Amino acid sequence: MGDEPFEEWLPQPDVSEVELVKVLHALGDPVRLRLLKVYADGEQYSCAPGALGLDHLHKSTVSHHMRIMREAGVTSTRVVGRGRYVRLRRDDLDARFPGLLDALIAAL
Amino acid sequence: MGDEPFEEWLPQPDVSEVELVKVLHALGDPVRLRLLKVYADGEQYSCAPGALGLDHLHKSTVSHHMRIMREAGVTSTRVVGRGRYVRLRRDDLDARFPGLLDALIAAL
Repeated sequence: MGDEPFEEWLPQPDVSEVELVKVLHALGDPVRLRLLKVYADGEQYSCAPGALGLDHLHKSTVSHHMRIMREAGVTSTRVVGRGRYVRLRRDDLDARFPGLLDALIAAL
Repeated sequence: MGDEPFEEWLPQPDVSEVELVKVLHALGDPVRLRLLKVYADGEQYSCAPGALGLDHLHKSTVSHHMRIMREAGVTSTRVVGRGRYVRLRRDDLDARFPGLLDALIAAL
């Protein structure tokens, strides 16, 4: 056990507490809507700007946008050692706001 | 003809120019999401805060929020004499972003 990397999830709202207005606010920004497009495939992504097509942004800026998405309930962030891995909360959002992600992703 | 009240439409983006990020930004606010709920029935509404369930807001604040919605392409505003009447661009938004308004209104 002692050799396993430290792993945790960053704080996120329970699905029942995800608010529509916060989700829309989170996605009503060009960078964060770009991130939704990246995450739409359901895979997990590191926070490296280059991996996200956001080379023009500083890492701290990308982290700021990711925090807004996580706190709004759009994404989950898993911490493994020094790495952070983000993915879309697809099932949670589909359950809470049926059809919303489908419509958004189709419109991207 | 001369006795007819002056009527015009305030400027709004053409349906082909409505951007998803601006629509989401427009709706990612508690007051504007409240307005969407009012407009969801497809009827036109005056800008009087009382008619919109927004008595706690100053008229200029309500006008500010309405301008953001109109410029984002969410609503149309018709000016008749001294009155302004706002309605949701339901058909335009359904054509541009299929399923989005349905999902949003169902989640309100």
